[in-house]
Amino acid sequence: MAVDRLCESGLADELSFLLARTNALSLAAGNVALAAHGLRVRSYSVLALAVSGERPSQRELADFLRLDPSQVVALIDELQADGLVERQPDPRDRRANVVVATDAGVRLHRVAHHAARAAEKRLYSVLDEETQDRLAAILREIAFSSRG
Amino acid sequence: MAVDRLCESGLADELSFLLARTNALSLAAGNVALAAHGLRVRSYSVLALAVSGERPSQRELADFLRLDPSQVVALIDELQADGLVERQPDPRDRRANVVVATDAGVRLHRVAHHAARAAEKRLYSVLDEETQDRLAAILREIAFSSRG
Repeated sequence: MAVDRLCESGLADELSFLLARTNALSLAAGNVALAAHGLRVRSYSVLALAVSGERPSQRELADFLRLDPSQVVALIDELQADGLVERQPDPRDRRANVVVATDAGVRLHRVAHHAARAAEKRLYSVLDEETQDRLAAILREIAFSSRG
Repeated sequence: MAVDRLCESGLADELSFLLARTNALSLAAGNVALAAHGLRVRSYSVLALAVSGERPSQRELADFLRLDPSQVVALIDELQADGLVERQPDPRDRRANVVVATDAGVRLHRVAHHAARAAEKRLYSVLDEETQDRLAAILREIAFSSRG
């Protein structure tokens, strides 16, 4: 099998590559699971943060999700057109908006969240629960170590 | 800080999100480090596999890197135009090509690899070496658990 051969290449030892490949599998599984709810991993992530009650601005969403601001604007437009989120004026900055979920958004998030978690569970089922927790803790350390 | 607030959202507990954010940081750091060598993380990955001596086909590259075949074709075109790789007939399949690095490709890979590893080292420096190894082992398990 091709994969076995290519695993012998130096690339397969590089953390960045392992991360990229795992993330690609995770994205693909997530997108499949969310499609039934009219969402993809990125729009789901924006919706999840809109539901959180933290009232993120567009810029905060872009920072947190590590997406281009233009991508975030497009995702919010899409969710807004579907009646799932709305933009409200940001009390901290007159020129900015915060993103808040509508009731329909809250309801859709609830079912989409279950679908996403089920897909995640399948993908990570090769690991026992303790290892999954350990992985989350390690990733959290890198993901939130230095930058905003 | 926005990130701190959004960390309280449920999304920050989802493994898929942590993976996506860590991968985005890793990609950004890798792209910065590789830019000086005229590469990006994806073209570097194709070059690294072309250098490996495993003579991957375009299809095997796409499978291994979890990219669309059309993306892989574009990356190979780019590397070929720069004289870094060449396509050779695949002895196992007359209609397919395998991708092999040129001497210039091998030389560029050597320096680019050092740059990529240095960027990786900085990003993962929040973890001690044992934890980095543990992370690689866990990711390897997911990345190569079931699929080709």
